[in-house]
Amino acid sequence: MSERNFMQLLENRWASGTAVCVGLDPDLAKIPKCIPPMDGAHRLYLFNRAIIQATHDLVCAFKPNVAMYEKYGEAGWAALRSTIEFAHEVCPEVPVILDAKRGDIGNTNEGYVIGSFGQLNADAITLHPYLGQEAMQPFLDQKDKGSIVLCRTSNKGAGEFQDLIVLDSGQKMFERVARNVATQWNVNGNCCVVVGATYPQELSHVRQIVGDMPILIPGIGAQGGDLEATVKNGKDSRGRGMIINSSRGIIFASNGDDFAEAARRETLALRDAINGYLKEAA
Amino acid sequence: MSERNFMQLLENRWASGTAVCVGLDPDLAKIPKCIPPMDGAHRLYLFNRAIIQATHDLVCAFKPNVAMYEKYGEAGWAALRSTIEFAHEVCPEVPVILDAKRGDIGNTNEGYVIGSFGQLNADAITLHPYLGQEAMQPFLDQKDKGSIVLCRTSNKGAGEFQDLIVLDSGQKMFERVARNVATQWNVNGNCCVVVGATYPQELSHVRQIVGDMPILIPGIGAQGGDLEATVKNGKDSRGRGMIINSSRGIIFASNGDDFAEAARRETLALRDAINGYLKEAA
Repeated sequence: MSERNFMQLLENRWASGTAVCVGLDPDLAKIPKCIPPMDGAHRLYLFNRAIIQATHDLVCAFKPNVAMYEKYGEAGWAALRSTIEFAHEVCPEVPVILDAKRGDIGNTNEGYVIGSFGQLNADAITLHPYLGQEAMQPFLDQKDKGSIVLCRTSNKGAGEFQDLIVLDSGQKMFERVARNVATQWNVNGNCCVVVGATYPQELSHVRQIVGDMPILIPGIGAQGGDLEATVKNGKDSRGRGMIINSSRGIIFASNGDDFAEAARRETLALRDAINGYLKEAA
Repeated sequence: MSERNFMQLLENRWASGTAVCVGLDPDLAKIPKCIPPMDGAHRLYLFNRAIIQATHDLVCAFKPNVAMYEKYGEAGWAALRSTIEFAHEVCPEVPVILDAKRGDIGNTNEGYVIGSFGQLNADAITLHPYLGQEAMQPFLDQKDKGSIVLCRTSNKGAGEFQDLIVLDSGQKMFERVARNVATQWNVNGNCCVVVGATYPQELSHVRQIVGDMPILIPGIGAQGGDLEATVKNGKDSRGRGMIINSSRGIIFASNGDDFAEAARRETLALRDAINGYLKEAA
């Protein structure tokens, strides 16, 4: 596994013609009845396995959100670990982003580094910027792993702190985060930022600030982000650079026996819609 | 367990004359040899058990940092869950703060709420402010559970974003976080803020902003915070309001067979030093 490099895997997947990231955020209450009702949290794994098998050739990344697993305690953690293991086996070419939104002081982050990259074998992790680069260095030092820093989040109330204007530069806080990540944090070329699809204007600002750095874009689908505006504002100078995530819109597209086929259909539709807008914008 | 209320437990512990919080941040590499070398992560629990037994009558809270457990995958999670369970059994009067520094969008935070309060049965959790109140509402809605929001962290590079001056008010970012938590987030009276002991000046500013809201203060001991300045700048109008955390300085006070007695000695010394400074300042 030591030869996996997040940025390289991502480039290869973009080259294959997809910017879709499938959010592996299963919910026991929504898992179809055709997944056998055995030990609770193990069903998360069985569900994910079917989704991974049905979609992996169409995606640039998978992104499990840790909250959906922590919810089930250590059994949830085991399901998360098995999910990532399965993805690496079936589609070693697809990077797995751990959506953990972690961030602590330096020596504590070393524990999270071991947990996410050692125990879980993820290829990248999402991070809070609030403690600053010095604290996040243990993540940034992992040259083969992606550090994906929250910048402008997709939620309605994201602006409470992220939109505050900083006196010294007249930039908004999220723009300052984008600037610092692009110009200071990215020494190893392994940083990305997060901007919600629900804020296409802000996405455009961040794209101007970070150049061709990859942007993870959640908020398509259930959260209501506009895909056309997202693609046009989010693409980099090469018409790439986006990891466009959809979770519920894909994995819960059907709650019947056809849930995996439905997930594939939605992934394909999203991939093609993105590629269509990219062509228009080229 | 439904009758536990974090703020009430904390008040009672302060009334008993202690502001010391012991950070349960064990490290397999530092656990004394007298803890039997059985299954790795289970030793974390055995170590914590001895620390809890030796110190619980002297503390206002225990604070396990989740990173130290995630590091060991699901076995670490099991050790964390057992640790909290044991603390609730042996000293139900002492609240347990999950130092998790979580923060995601609203519906995802519901997963973390179940994980931290349902699965792990913690009494409070530490949170990142970056996504704003609207996202953190699932935590804030848990009336009996503490929401402890990062404000000015203890690390060297904390100022990168936290010290930026916000144009509209001339406040620094961390002061704006303190203000919003005190005036908007705290509808249920269950909020606290975090300020590092390494920044006594900033601690004083935050105390002015938040009134008598409890402040969790890490950074004493190994991180080098000044205890006298911390107590004088951190106390509320009643000479209380502080949760002063020490982790390594207490739990690793000795690496011999006497580690639990050494932890008790250090806890007692810290408690008495805090109370001495409180008396001087009264």
